[in-house]
Parts: sequence; structure tokens; C-alpha cells
Amino acid sequence: MRIEPEPAGIFADWMAEVQARTERALERILPCAQVAPQRLHAAMRYAVLGAGKRVRPLLVHAAGALTGAAAASLDRAACAVELIHAYSLVHDDLPCMDDDTLRRGRPTCHVEFDQATALLAGDALQSAAFQTLCEGPEHIEPALRLDLVRLLAQAAGSRGMAGGQAIDLASVGSALSVEELEFMHIHKTGALIRASVKMGARLGAGLEAGAGAALDRYARCAGLLFQVVDDLLDCESNTATLGKTAGKDRENDKPTYVTVLGTARARELSRELLDEALEAADELGPGGERLIDLARFIVERKY
Amino acid sequence: MRIEPEPAGIFADWMAEVQARTERALERILPCAQVAPQRLHAAMRYAVLGAGKRVRPLLVHAAGALTGAAAASLDRAACAVELIHAYSLVHDDLPCMDDDTLRRGRPTCHVEFDQATALLAGDALQSAAFQTLCEGPEHIEPALRLDLVRLLAQAAGSRGMAGGQAIDLASVGSALSVEELEFMHIHKTGALIRASVKMGARLGAGLEAGAGAALDRYARCAGLLFQVVDDLLDCESNTATLGKTAGKDRENDKPTYVTVLGTARARELSRELLDEALEAADELGPGGERLIDLARFIVERKY
Repeated sequence: MRIEPEPAGIFADWMAEVQARTERALERILPCAQVAPQRLHAAMRYAVLGAGKRVRPLLVHAAGALTGAAAASLDRAACAVELIHAYSLVHDDLPCMDDDTLRRGRPTCHVEFDQATALLAGDALQSAAFQTLCEGPEHIEPALRLDLVRLLAQAAGSRGMAGGQAIDLASVGSALSVEELEFMHIHKTGALIRASVKMGARLGAGLEAGAGAALDRYARCAGLLFQVVDDLLDCESNTATLGKTAGKDRENDKPTYVTVLGTARARELSRELLDEALEAADELGPGGERLIDLARFIVERKY
Repeated sequence: MRIEPEPAGIFADWMAEVQARTERALERILPCAQVAPQRLHAAMRYAVLGAGKRVRPLLVHAAGALTGAAAASLDRAACAVELIHAYSLVHDDLPCMDDDTLRRGRPTCHVEFDQATALLAGDALQSAAFQTLCEGPEHIEPALRLDLVRLLAQAAGSRGMAGGQAIDLASVGSALSVEELEFMHIHKTGALIRASVKMGARLGAGLEAGAGAALDRYARCAGLLFQVVDDLLDCESNTATLGKTAGKDRENDKPTYVTVLGTARARELSRELLDEALEAADELGPGGERLIDLARFIVERKY
């Protein structure tokens, strides 16, 4: 039995509400730009606030809705994953990495500030992510918080996101197989997306083993789906719509789903992954609507 | 009543033992260089293993000895602070920061590998530090572990070490007052040194309020002392002994205790800080011997 998607308006309202509450929470969590060291704090705020689709916080809240977690309990976890994501973008844009000048429609952090400040801002955002999980709502048990710290640290580290970035770097100019490409993205983008789903679900009631496996399958598909769509957008959209430099992957001679599979097959893959994600979400039963809507949103997004 | 320092041999043996067990624990915690992504893991191991005085792990163990914590309980905390320290050195040495080529007698990480790998290795070492605190000895309560995560995240972040680095960068070429210099170092070096002491003590029995304050006074003095001696060594020692480029501060036009106060007054200050650290340690009573020995070691070190 397939869960019917909700009317678009309900999902759009929910999404806007989660984005707004995440923005408010990030605003509170990040040190004021008036507090010393001012320039560093200004750079951290610049890198995080006022832009971004907040896909990972949306996943935290969608998975939390599935397990009955209160939105107020989910805010810290949502902010923590977004802080890790924001730090990774700042470092990824540095000249020694992708050397990009445009992000979320604005100059990248090292262009707006300087390289050293961007490096330190990224470093401090990572620390802030872990600090955030230790603070906030009193009613969240230490053992649960510690689980969140562990999930996030694993996802961010050398066998997760940072490891994926390293594989990405090593792949420049080489002809990867689709399996190698998948391995790279399961780490680079997938690890943090999976952690978002797991952390959100962890904050509510426990799932049965079967549902836990379905949720993880959903998260794995959503992560890959996100990347396939990213690769398609990079080659088919334009800089103004994306808010970052279009065609950057080709310019950097990076293997992508489009270069490895071709556009038509990459689009087909995105449909297959969406189907698989929706099937997994269906198994979760009532409460999984948000996850279904989000998977569709990931495919239909324009930037 | 002043606690008498122990015979030098006892302290030297203890120090060698803590250094050896820290090395073994770090060796276990860091992913093998055979595990993908191999180059990243090799860079992480290169940055951490086989060198370093392990001052921060020594402080963790010394403070833990004071509160009766078992050495086996202290290893993870000791490794976590050392991983944060190692990541900060890797990033600090990058061309966009201090642009240094020599560290611990070897090429810096970005010279041995490349800038992007060094950047990611630093990032992943930070994640590994927090992950480490979530794992290991079962008997350590989640609430206590979470305290360690919070102490470390605060010390590493924008109002701690990373903030100190930012102030350091901003100070290049400017004439700081001794108060401004102290503010910088309380963040840059001091925050992590204080956290080491607090984390070690937290793993044993609770301290009385008075002892807690004395311990924090000790940690604050030890942190500044470490930096004053560092500044003296930078201008008075040589590259071969230091294992890093001597005279680097002057070359980078950075204010130091030596440039701000002059060599004679900086040396006097180191004696005053040592006295203050020893006085604070005296108030701690029996069990504080290691802290006393360590303060002396910090002053007498040659690199």
C-alpha cells in the first residue's frame, strides 16, 4: 500500500516552518558578530545564515516526525548537521580544494573575508556543531545526546564526509566506474544525509528493526538521489539559478553521474532512486509522509 | 606547606609511560592507512603519530591522578585533546596561515602530502576527537562523556582555540599591549590546556569548590607559561632543536611575549607564572605532585 503524497500546500507550509525555525535556532546558536573575535564570528554567520535549502534539517525533522519527536527536541540536531554541512562548503570552496567564488548566490566565504578566516570559520563551525548537541533542551537524556554526537562524528569524519571529499579529490581527471562513483558519494554527500535521518529518528520513539532498516534504505537512496540531481543540475542549469558556478564539475574535470552515465541514464537513475526511496518510505507506514514529500522535493528542486 | 617535587626519575618514568600509552591509544584510534581513503588516513596518522611531547595528554593524566581516575579511563580524553591539538597544527601550518614547512622535525603535513589532503586530514582529526569521546571504556557514564564533549568543543571553538588563532592572525604587524597578548594566548593555547586539566579531573572523584578553583588557576598559569616559554624558545633556540622553524614569529611579524616585553622581562614572567602555578598546585594537596612536575617540565623543556 503506497502512502499518498499530501496536497502540495501542506508540505510547502511544513517546509517553510522548519526552514524558519532552523534559521532562528542557528541565529541563536552562532556567536554574535559583536563578540570577539568579531571577524571570525562574522564569517561563521555569513557561511551559515540567510541562505541554503536546509535539506538536512528538513530530513532531521521529517524523520523525527516519523518517530513522534517534538520539533523543539529536533532543532539542535537539525542545526548540528547544518553546521557540519556549512563548514564543509566553506572548506570545499577554498582555492586548494574546488576554488569556487560563488555559493548560495553570494561570494564564497574566503572571497568575502580571506582564506585564513574561512579556514578558521569552517574549523569553528565544526566545533560548534558538537557543542550544540551538548546544550539545549534539558529533557534530552545524556545517553541519547551522546548517540547523536557519535552519529554526527562518524558521518563527518574520514570514513564519512571528509573521506568522501578525499576520494573526490583523488578522482579528478580519472575515469571512475559507476560503483566507484557511488562509493564516493555514499561518503561525500550520503553519510551526512543518512546521519540526519538517523539523528531525527533517534530523538523520538524507537523503531522496530524492520522499520529501522527501511528508514536506512530510504536515507541511502535519498543521499544518492541528492547527488545525481546535483550532477544533473551542474551541467543543465545556469549559475544564476544555482547560486553557484554551473559547469564547475566539468571545468574541474571531475567524474559525475552525468559524465560517467550520460544525461539520459543519469535522469533514469534519479527516477529509479526516487522509486526506491518512496518504496522504503511506504514501508514505514503513517508518519512517513514528510519523507516521501522530501524525496520528491530533492528530485524537483531547481538549485 | 609546599609539596616537595619528587625525585626526577619517578616523574621521568611516569611521563614516558603516559607518552607511550597515549601513542598506543592514538595508534588504535586512528584508522589504518590501508583503509580507504588511504591517502587521507596516511596523512592523519602522519600528523599525529610518532612525535610530539604530548603535553596535553600529560596534563589530562596528571589532573586525573589528582582525582583518582584510573589511567585506562583517561586515555580517550588524552587522545581527544591531542587529536584537536594535532589538527590545529596541520591547519596552522598551511600556506594561508603560518605557511610553515617544518614541524616536529619533519616536513609539515601539506608539504609531505598536499594542501587539500592536509586540510581534510585536519578536518577529519577534529571529528575523530569527538568520536573518540563517545567510544571506549563502557564504565564511563554518558553524562560524564557528554561533559567531556562539551568541554572539548568549547575549548576548540570560536571562543577558544580557533578564536585565538583568529586573534593571532589579526595581530600580525600590530603592537599589542601585554593584556591583548594575554587575551590572545588564553584562547589560542590556554583554552585547550585548561580543557585538558578539567577533562582529566572530571574523570575522577569530584573536587571541593576550593580545589576546583585552585586547579583552574593552575591550568590558566600553565597555559600562559607554555606560551611564554614557546615565545622565548622561538627566538633563542634553533631549528634543529625545536623541530620547527626558529625565528618564525619575527619573520611573520607576530607580536610575542619577547617582542612585547623583551627577553629579560619575558623570562621573569615565566618565573612568576611558574611560581603561581606551583602555589595553586600546592593548594591541591597530596596527588598534585604530577601537576607540579609538569609545570617545571613546561619551563625547562628545550623544544
